[in-house]
Amino acid sequence: MEILKERIKKDGTVLPGNILKVGSFLNHQLDIELLDLMGKEMAKRFEHENITRILTIEASGIAVACAVAHYFLHKGKPVPVVFAKKNKTTNLSGDCFVSKVTSYTHGKDYEITVEKRFLNQDDNVLLVDDFLANGSALEGLVNLVALSKAHLTGAGIVIEKGFQEGGKALRKQGIRIESLAIIKSMSVENGVVFI
Amino acid sequence: MEILKERIKKDGTVLPGNILKVGSFLNHQLDIELLDLMGKEMAKRFEHENITRILTIEASGIAVACAVAHYFLHKGKPVPVVFAKKNKTTNLSGDCFVSKVTSYTHGKDYEITVEKRFLNQDDNVLLVDDFLANGSALEGLVNLVALSKAHLTGAGIVIEKGFQEGGKALRKQGIRIESLAIIKSMSVENGVVFI
Repeated sequence: MEILKERIKKDGTVLPGNILKVGSFLNHQLDIELLDLMGKEMAKRFEHENITRILTIEASGIAVACAVAHYFLHKGKPVPVVFAKKNKTTNLSGDCFVSKVTSYTHGKDYEITVEKRFLNQDDNVLLVDDFLANGSALEGLVNLVALSKAHLTGAGIVIEKGFQEGGKALRKQGIRIESLAIIKSMSVENGVVFI
Repeated sequence: MEILKERIKKDGTVLPGNILKVGSFLNHQLDIELLDLMGKEMAKRFEHENITRILTIEASGIAVACAVAHYFLHKGKPVPVVFAKKNKTTNLSGDCFVSKVTSYTHGKDYEITVEKRFLNQDDNVLLVDDFLANGSALEGLVNLVALSKAHLTGAGIVIEKGFQEGGKALRKQGIRIESLAIIKSMSVENGVVFI
């Protein structure tokens, strides 16, 4: 998606340790106009898949997932968005699917949780997230879908770090992954190069 | 907002300890159609205020804030959404506004953080959140705005627990609060009664 790649080049900041900061438009502040376009682009790639549920993970995935759902709604097909929770709260009822995720950004493991009633075995699930790097978060979501016995249609990702293993490993499992921008390489000196 | 009140009555569950579960449409699964209507209603109440920034808090506030921003975008006025972070991550740069919040749901204090570059003193800020009960989260956001010296236009809330002190205390400070549904009382036996 050209407009996204241009925005990453313009406003993204590369930090040591393969960190890409896109807080000014994606995961701290949200550019609503760009968000709308990204949701539309992502939704179009899965438009003929009869998606019945969009599954994402708090917090940064929520806005993107809603933008995708908004496009489906605009086309007369409301699809609910479910966001997996990172911390078990007192507000969750007992009956949950739980999966483990290793965060390299925060350097620790955590659990993601979805109440069972929000993932049914007759669902066609589209996963949505802002980033795909080592793939741990997405794998956690894939696992939640597997536990629910729902059908996994694929995953829509905003930015994929193509030089890390997550995308490759998940595609090898036969999962369709659509990334709006795939980074070939990045460095503090030379910035971001896309595939 | 009648459609919201009806939905709370139909799908909300009251648990002991004044907990209202609305996970099926607001803070675990999102009903995109209702979300759209809520965003529109909230945006309309602040339509003539020249909002330049919407500030919310991860995670449940994000979808509502985006729905409000989506309505403004639809009217030709894109307004960025900023969500305060609950955990300081390695992805945040050093220069931040920080405020303390006491969570009664989770029984602990935590800090919320916004990078300084996303709140300027010439901003007109609209706060958005899903719940207002004791007011601690909203007060944290008010505090972030005060630290930035931006102008606080008001707050849009989906569900206010009118029998708790948050709304009263914040209105006493002169803050305009628009809640789409205000609960007068609730109990496991009798469910939810609105003002």
